[in-house]
Amino acid sequence: MLYFEDFAAGARYQAGPIPVDRDELIAFARRYDPQPFHTDPVAAQATLFAGLAASGWMTACLTMRMLVDSGNGPAGGFIARQIEGLEWPRPVRPGDTLRAASEVVEIRPSRSNPDRGMVRMRTETRNQDGEIVQVLTALLVVPRRPADQKDA
Amino acid sequence: MLYFEDFAAGARYQAGPIPVDRDELIAFARRYDPQPFHTDPVAAQATLFAGLAASGWMTACLTMRMLVDSGNGPAGGFIARQIEGLEWPRPVRPGDTLRAASEVVEIRPSRSNPDRGMVRMRTETRNQDGEIVQVLTALLVVPRRPADQKDA
Repeated sequence: MLYFEDFAAGARYQAGPIPVDRDELIAFARRYDPQPFHTDPVAAQATLFAGLAASGWMTACLTMRMLVDSGNGPAGGFIARQIEGLEWPRPVRPGDTLRAASEVVEIRPSRSNPDRGMVRMRTETRNQDGEIVQVLTALLVVPRRPADQKDA
Repeated sequence: MLYFEDFAAGARYQAGPIPVDRDELIAFARRYDPQPFHTDPVAAQATLFAGLAASGWMTACLTMRMLVDSGNGPAGGFIARQIEGLEWPRPVRPGDTLRAASEVVEIRPSRSNPDRGMVRMRTETRNQDGEIVQVLTALLVVPRRPADQKDA
């Protein structure tokens, strides 16, 4: 668990891997993003994706799971004040294995809240071939270390 | 199904409603965002959220479902080139009912692909009290109407 004081611009963190399960991919899309290129392997062939592809929101969700599991999260949890950018440059396919690599882009103390700061983090998600499938930039709210834990 | 020619800056679309189910909220978080304020009603009380709150990613997913169901989607489907912004100004709670309202912010023809254009769409998701729980800005890839359908 990291406090604001523990983050520095340029620091890097790894997370994952996590496999992309075909049944989960389809079930997720049926509930949250029911479009043929995410739900129907046959219909998906005739679309821009040329085959079944995960909903981008599922890629975001799997990335979030990797980040939480990594243990490199802010004290108090991953709480995004704002997602500043989210792109899916390549499709995620059933059977892919994803990993995430985050970099701290900027840190800055909060002007209004002396007990916290903001951490801008850029997270790239890649497949098993090293191809980037998602780029996420988030502005995280991170608490400062409490006075009684300064020596911890 | 809407082609690029059918979109105009300022046009508005409504979507929803969709209820937020407590069991689904917890199951979603256990899989994709396992943090106490999303998974544990008791532990959530002591967090910034002061009670169980949906993962922001679930709010994004429920919004996506409403958009797809609305029938006001681009021909070929909702395909985002880029999410330019995503914020969750207030927590979503179990039992909430969400609705989405989208506005076309800008349209512009693609420079490189004469068969498509870009539509910048801003979607606000509100709860049953009219409070904004999510603001999403997306740049959508939208096909132009094919020549053989100009009279359709």
